[in-house]
Amino acid sequence: MLKDIIDNNENYQPGLSIDCVIFGFHDNQLKVLLIKVERANKWSLPGGFIPVDQDIDTAAITVLNSRTGVEGIFLRQFATFGKVNRNHQHFDKKTLEYLQIEEEKGKWLMRRFVTIGYYALVDFSKILPNPTGRMEIVEWIDHKEVPELILDHREILDKALDTLRIELNLMPIGYNLLPEKFTIPELQKLYETILDKKLDRRNFLRKITNIGILTKLDEKKSNVAHKAPNLYSFDKEKYDEVLKNGLNQGW
Amino acid sequence: MLKDIIDNNENYQPGLSIDCVIFGFHDNQLKVLLIKVERANKWSLPGGFIPVDQDIDTAAITVLNSRTGVEGIFLRQFATFGKVNRNHQHFDKKTLEYLQIEEEKGKWLMRRFVTIGYYALVDFSKILPNPTGRMEIVEWIDHKEVPELILDHREILDKALDTLRIELNLMPIGYNLLPEKFTIPELQKLYETILDKKLDRRNFLRKITNIGILTKLDEKKSNVAHKAPNLYSFDKEKYDEVLKNGLNQGW
Repeated sequence: MLKDIIDNNENYQPGLSIDCVIFGFHDNQLKVLLIKVERANKWSLPGGFIPVDQDIDTAAITVLNSRTGVEGIFLRQFATFGKVNRNHQHFDKKTLEYLQIEEEKGKWLMRRFVTIGYYALVDFSKILPNPTGRMEIVEWIDHKEVPELILDHREILDKALDTLRIELNLMPIGYNLLPEKFTIPELQKLYETILDKKLDRRNFLRKITNIGILTKLDEKKSNVAHKAPNLYSFDKEKYDEVLKNGLNQGW
Repeated sequence: MLKDIIDNNENYQPGLSIDCVIFGFHDNQLKVLLIKVERANKWSLPGGFIPVDQDIDTAAITVLNSRTGVEGIFLRQFATFGKVNRNHQHFDKKTLEYLQIEEEKGKWLMRRFVTIGYYALVDFSKILPNPTGRMEIVEWIDHKEVPELILDHREILDKALDTLRIELNLMPIGYNLLPEKFTIPELQKLYETILDKKLDRRNFLRKITNIGILTKLDEKKSNVAHKAPNLYSFDKEKYDEVLKNGLNQGW
């Protein structure tokens, strides 16, 4: 609760916060997890403050877990945002009163807050949007239909999506997002949805095969009229190796 | 001066700093700018604090300019570091006394400091290492011979070099680092020095030509016995375009 944090603000890093861009993929849709608190008219990214006794990465994991209810999700720091006017001046006297926060204590919130951005990519069908049960609206919203956001949250979201698209060139993707057995066209759709563009079928097949993380199974997709496509699975050992060392398609 | 900052610490963002990894390239050597303050036995990266009335990116530019004396250098934020034990506890009572900092004021420095990392790549032959004339040793040190650094500066440096190597796949490099007219072997040497590995001559030529940022000049390198190599220059307009939009060698 915000009141608890502000009343005990000496336990938190001053002027520093975390914002998480949680992308959700399912059935060829890319959505983003957004929050609207009571009384607010704009949406925001899920975020939090940094306890003095937690590493920043740990604090980010805490935010993600408290919002999604799942652990072990791939979470990556991507940028830190700190314009001079990045403050919570929209918390006016009335809002503080409503939240039962003393004006003197509330000053802690009014200074410039630099925020560290993290992004995650999850299968949104497997996740409860609001396991904490706070008095907030929490929704998965299509990334192309994002409403007005508070502060610089739109900039943070855009930067996260840019980073995700760039990192598709540096790391593999798909584990935890696709069924255990999948077809190449399904994997291609995942890339196309994130990149928001059509990809050439042959080029995609060649590139994805060259990475060496796929195992071709001795099975075809059922329930398909004719020319049933082959099924594949990820070679998890090689997948993790490439995730760690990066795609070697550089110089 | 540290004393001035600490005496007026209300003008600075608490618990937050900037550290710059300034890589210097010249004549096929990759060095890094390091600093040793009087009385210290370890080296450190050049860094600074963030005035409350400056954007974090502006504060980073200020640090870079004050250390190199040049403006308009390519500077990029790459990561933020904030382990729980990231503090300046090595500033003991004696050091504070020596710096004429009151113990009470000095407490500002003792909490966990989260630091935002920026990196730059400059031609070190064109830069004064210490235009501020502070009482510090400032040196360009070969990146393979870096001595012991304070705090987590080694981790910050390693992460910056990793990022630079990855970003070679995303952006062009060489402007301001090579003479106006250069040969392909000279450009290849730049890449090889940063990547710390040999590259195949034909592959490099093909890839670098495909980017479309080079202008082949109607001149050959002089003072070369036979088979004088062609000279090239950067097409600055296309170079800036690719720098802005990224290398399009993705999916």
